[in-house]
Amino acid sequence: MVAAVPLKEHLRAQVRRIDEELERLAPAETTPPEVIHRAMRYSLFAGGKRIRPVLCLEAARAVAGEDPEGVYAVAGSLEMIHTYSLIHDDLPALDNDDLRRGRPTNHKVFGEAMAILAGDALLTLAFEVLGRIGNARLVAELASASGTVGGMIGGQVHDLEGEKAEPTAELLERIHRAKTGALLRASVRLGAIHAGADEAELEALSRYGEHIGLAFQIVDDVLDVEQSSEALGKTAGKDAQQNKVTFPAVYGLERSKEMAGGERRRAHEALERFGERGQRLRELADLIVERRS
Amino acid sequence: MVAAVPLKEHLRAQVRRIDEELERLAPAETTPPEVIHRAMRYSLFAGGKRIRPVLCLEAARAVAGEDPEGVYAVAGSLEMIHTYSLIHDDLPALDNDDLRRGRPTNHKVFGEAMAILAGDALLTLAFEVLGRIGNARLVAELASASGTVGGMIGGQVHDLEGEKAEPTAELLERIHRAKTGALLRASVRLGAIHAGADEAELEALSRYGEHIGLAFQIVDDVLDVEQSSEALGKTAGKDAQQNKVTFPAVYGLERSKEMAGGERRRAHEALERFGERGQRLRELADLIVERRS
Repeated sequence: MVAAVPLKEHLRAQVRRIDEELERLAPAETTPPEVIHRAMRYSLFAGGKRIRPVLCLEAARAVAGEDPEGVYAVAGSLEMIHTYSLIHDDLPALDNDDLRRGRPTNHKVFGEAMAILAGDALLTLAFEVLGRIGNARLVAELASASGTVGGMIGGQVHDLEGEKAEPTAELLERIHRAKTGALLRASVRLGAIHAGADEAELEALSRYGEHIGLAFQIVDDVLDVEQSSEALGKTAGKDAQQNKVTFPAVYGLERSKEMAGGERRRAHEALERFGERGQRLRELADLIVERRS
Repeated sequence: MVAAVPLKEHLRAQVRRIDEELERLAPAETTPPEVIHRAMRYSLFAGGKRIRPVLCLEAARAVAGEDPEGVYAVAGSLEMIHTYSLIHDDLPALDNDDLRRGRPTNHKVFGEAMAILAGDALLTLAFEVLGRIGNARLVAELASASGTVGGMIGGQVHDLEGEKAEPTAELLERIHRAKTGALLRASVRLGAIHAGADEAELEALSRYGEHIGLAFQIVDDVLDVEQSSEALGKTAGKDAQQNKVTFPAVYGLERSKEMAGGERRRAHEALERFGERGQRLRELADLIVERRS
């Protein structure tokens, strides 16, 4: 039962189904107060690659061999958390970015007040969705991965603080393990937990999630140096400009690329027990390392 | 088993226990990244009256006759949501307030970036706490009450939009039912659900929550007109200055006070089935209407 459908085609179909689910979960633009629902949807449907939901779906399939009921809602909650973090990150007080995925950032369109509230609302909606699914463990997992202690917000704070600090290997790892790694790892874990993974499966998929999380961030940092703003759909070169602690800043470009390759290899190794069922996750690890934007 | 202890004394003891629980739930100031934990705690321990946690506790007691295990954590999650909403509300892009409970607002002390993230973190932590308790229904209830459709964020948006609109009775009710009413109602409901309330008990306590919620907001609006900034511990007269839709603006001061009294009476009526066990909730309804700050 391998992947007869090529990955790109498979992903296009997945993204369509994830978007349908987000469409169902997010309040309509005609629901009062309309403006915040427009603001939430503006960023939620801004052409995101849906990497986190896809990881969640494929982890669930690796465990269960099929789509467990409700797994698309679990996947959607991850995209809501990711989207809220982008909206708040882009605010003038944080990264002050005008461009995201090739379009004006949320606060540029809706104003700062509405962008702050739209972020809050997506964060809140993510937990409402998981609460309705009825498994409190998913809630605790996602909240922990999004929080301050080893989670996404903690990583953002380390990142802000890092702008004032010397870029060291230790600081770099701490930032990225939290800032992007925790949510990518949680994406895999939520799918696995929802599919009823046993401890060994969950442990293996967590390791996979950690390695692709680190690979993802290394590649992100490399692309910020190598690519144009046009190719990225966001302002390139901002890391250096803002004096951020990045992999290229600490290790140089070539060594960074080698490191991303190492993480990919370890991600593949973590999938051994899943055999054919892990094939899509292997392909996703490859895609994360080989992507150009 | 009535309240031998006078309400004020009872509340002081409750606030102490709630603060101990929040102390236990919030990451320590020495946990990295330290600065965000300092920022979260600065607002969490800023002398709040803990009205929402107290309502939660007393609703649980009205149902169960004792403190169900874990009810203090449920109560704590409500204070976290309330605190996050104050931090974000005070931001320059929203109400732009420098003073809260007699102290500089969060962003005045920690800067806007950290205040945004500290709010996000308290919102996230509230759901982590409920997730760990293990009842997904509590999560869905709190998220819904905090969200955009009839919930707190929806009320804030209506409020922001209301600054541009004619103050009408209909707009006023919609704003306040959502902005403060939903979370106060949820405070009562979460306590009741956690205590295992049946449908009739939950319905009665929900009505109680709605009436005290409306009473609370009417009194808040009246105090903003009548009291000094010093007495309130926040900037008084801001509603009129910002052209907010308030009860005094729509009904005048005297009629507003009568309305608060009517809500109190209906709150008492909703408690009939609880007999003596509802006594503290009755006293709280009185306190909400009679408070001077």
